[in-house]
Amino acid sequence: MNFKDNYNIAIVGLGNIGSEVYKHLVKNKRIIEKNTNSTFQIKYISAKKISKKRGFSVPKKMWVKNPLSLVKKDDVDIIIELIGGPDGVAKKLAFAALQNNKHLVTANKALIFKHGNELAKIAEKNSVNLLFEASVGGGIPIIKSIKESLVGNKLFHIYGILNGTTNFILTEIERTKKNFKEILSNAQKLGYAETNPKLDLNGDDVKSKISILSALCFKTKIINKSFLTEGIEQIDLEDVEYANKFKYKIKLLGISEIIDNKVKQRVHPCLISKDSDLAKINGANNAIMVEGNPVGKIVYQGLGAGKGPTTSSVVSDLNSILKGNITLPFGFNFSDAKEFKMFDFDNHICKFYLRIVVKDKPGVLSKITSILSKFKISIQSILQQPLSNPQYANLVIISHNAKEKDMKLALKKISKEKFISKKITMIRIRNEKKL
Amino acid sequence: MNFKDNYNIAIVGLGNIGSEVYKHLVKNKRIIEKNTNSTFQIKYISAKKISKKRGFSVPKKMWVKNPLSLVKKDDVDIIIELIGGPDGVAKKLAFAALQNNKHLVTANKALIFKHGNELAKIAEKNSVNLLFEASVGGGIPIIKSIKESLVGNKLFHIYGILNGTTNFILTEIERTKKNFKEILSNAQKLGYAETNPKLDLNGDDVKSKISILSALCFKTKIINKSFLTEGIEQIDLEDVEYANKFKYKIKLLGISEIIDNKVKQRVHPCLISKDSDLAKINGANNAIMVEGNPVGKIVYQGLGAGKGPTTSSVVSDLNSILKGNITLPFGFNFSDAKEFKMFDFDNHICKFYLRIVVKDKPGVLSKITSILSKFKISIQSILQQPLSNPQYANLVIISHNAKEKDMKLALKKISKEKFISKKITMIRIRNEKKL
Repeated sequence: MNFKDNYNIAIVGLGNIGSEVYKHLVKNKRIIEKNTNSTFQIKYISAKKISKKRGFSVPKKMWVKNPLSLVKKDDVDIIIELIGGPDGVAKKLAFAALQNNKHLVTANKALIFKHGNELAKIAEKNSVNLLFEASVGGGIPIIKSIKESLVGNKLFHIYGILNGTTNFILTEIERTKKNFKEILSNAQKLGYAETNPKLDLNGDDVKSKISILSALCFKTKIINKSFLTEGIEQIDLEDVEYANKFKYKIKLLGISEIIDNKVKQRVHPCLISKDSDLAKINGANNAIMVEGNPVGKIVYQGLGAGKGPTTSSVVSDLNSILKGNITLPFGFNFSDAKEFKMFDFDNHICKFYLRIVVKDKPGVLSKITSILSKFKISIQSILQQPLSNPQYANLVIISHNAKEKDMKLALKKISKEKFISKKITMIRIRNEKKL
Repeated sequence: MNFKDNYNIAIVGLGNIGSEVYKHLVKNKRIIEKNTNSTFQIKYISAKKISKKRGFSVPKKMWVKNPLSLVKKDDVDIIIELIGGPDGVAKKLAFAALQNNKHLVTANKALIFKHGNELAKIAEKNSVNLLFEASVGGGIPIIKSIKESLVGNKLFHIYGILNGTTNFILTEIERTKKNFKEILSNAQKLGYAETNPKLDLNGDDVKSKISILSALCFKTKIINKSFLTEGIEQIDLEDVEYANKFKYKIKLLGISEIIDNKVKQRVHPCLISKDSDLAKINGANNAIMVEGNPVGKIVYQGLGAGKGPTTSSVVSDLNSILKGNITLPFGFNFSDAKEFKMFDFDNHICKFYLRIVVKDKPGVLSKITSILSKFKISIQSILQQPLSNPQYANLVIISHNAKEKDMKLALKKISKEKFISKKITMIRIRNEKKL
């Protein structure tokens, strides 16, 4: 594609984010044009419903019913995809756009996670841009930062709080002492959680994001096969309060690192020290930590979602295209993507937090500790507290360092005991330090 | 300057940073070349002493005695200036390099602060790069972030901890309960403070940095005329401990914001709430907060100095050039630079912390409070404590909101009283919230 100084833009998807992007581009057209030394027009808009109430009106001549028709139009240079979802129209549009030499800007993490490797290949081959700053960390410019600013570093560790909804819920449980269900329903009312919050709560959202970041940092393809992904559905007020007693906070983290030439990538809730930097990230905020040589550790914080932050990132990508830049989607030639093996998570070693609801009768404690000891798991702290039904008690255990595999086997064995009536809550403890 | 895929580099200055940059480029040559789709050679090196012990040897054919001769050489495309200082050789080299169409990468904040406006004009005119990521925030990629990622925002506020040395000293005073002098001498031994630490301690270092950031954020020229700049020389253990009693920490901040179409830019120590994010930035770390619409607030943290972080930033700039990018030094056309008036700081309103060493005799307190009240300054908290010499006492006052001008006049008047024997310590209190 040749350098050109006039660009025609199509926006597909006109929900919360799409509307904000449209309004922003209309309002700031002159500034963006001056800044990028180019001109642009929003030529087409496509969305499910033309008649939805949006608080502004879009000229009818812009409306296109079938978004897939946009990719064949000569007067479309850039497609901004804001539909969402890994498949369906978003997927078809993304592939067709790049195949037809259109630049693609997207906020769609699920799409990049699932099809990013194939999409990147096409973009590279056709020398068009595939940009997705808004897919991770809301307004935090983490993707460009890794691709272009930390480029001189050997990065070996990226992790953080990547989902605002779950962080909001965990913060609110602690602040209000209310239980998970109540807080979730409140978060939905406030717009901090979707009507169907499953993908936030079960860790899938963070899974996509950490995979994308991991690929960028370690110069690999996106790992989209299965890896350890746990959400926060099993966590409740009790756990937050017990964690507190032991000077921890519970956070849902996405973590990826290179260890002995293997990628160790996972998503799960962690108990982290109350004094650590991550423990202080409250509400709907995101925080991303990147470690490498020679830069050391860099931390980015900001709102991880919402129409304002997302628009900031979409517009940043758009600016790059309007300036005439053609950048590699992942910041490196895709044919050079490194191949790392996956770390076998069974070998992961950490301390564990366990909450076991037991029948309060003699011999139970001795039975549990004897099983743990059989699997070489020793106990650092233990706390037993009666429940409102006095026949049952919460048994909270903080283990010393133990192997994931041993812990899994031990818990399987303990679960089979007759005095166990509920699923055991197990949360890994992460040795997270201050910056 | 035409696109070329081979670049000749000259490094000028081979101290701590220069040596690290040289070693990094030698070691990572192949990776950088692959990443940027170009080739490069370190063609020349110039430094004061060829014979200094550096732990590595530089081929003699690279050595150039007079760095200014580099700008006339046809086989130099990029000059990396790591000498430092606003004038002298660094200044001459920078001007001559850009005038002779050489790209310039520098870590020199004092140079950019003092001459950045003129240098940017020349770079723009000649379409060469003038890049200075390493001049602010060490390895934190704040400059590129503002210029390229937050570009779609209307930024109105940038501030933070921009000097690692003073933050280290303030942290250590609190941690060790030792006095300023002891901690400074310790910091010098550990390499956290220069042999001549004046420019760190008096706020000048932060002054340069906040001016550069302010220009980038608000799209103005660099304001290098005088503005309120205070350092931490007047602060001692007593102040840190009194601040603590009132639930504050003392931090040296650089702050710039747009208020009513005026730039309000300043450097001074602040009392900030212990619970705020900035209060938790310890040791040699930097933290930079940027606020704007629609992105909200973004926070960047990382080591603010040192050879590793600085090298990361220099190499980031170099990568941009090797990729063939020509970017505007400030991210906008210099001829479009906005003109804001400076906010008259006499109109600044905040709470104040005062520590007044007084002769402990009747009538003193009444005299001081009556002067304050005359200047419409009311008192929120007051604390009097005897000093080791029982004739004297520390009188610590936290005022309610008051005008800078009134406070200055009141302190001038109080200072003339006979019961005052030492300079009054006055620190502004900043209403700094959590993210």
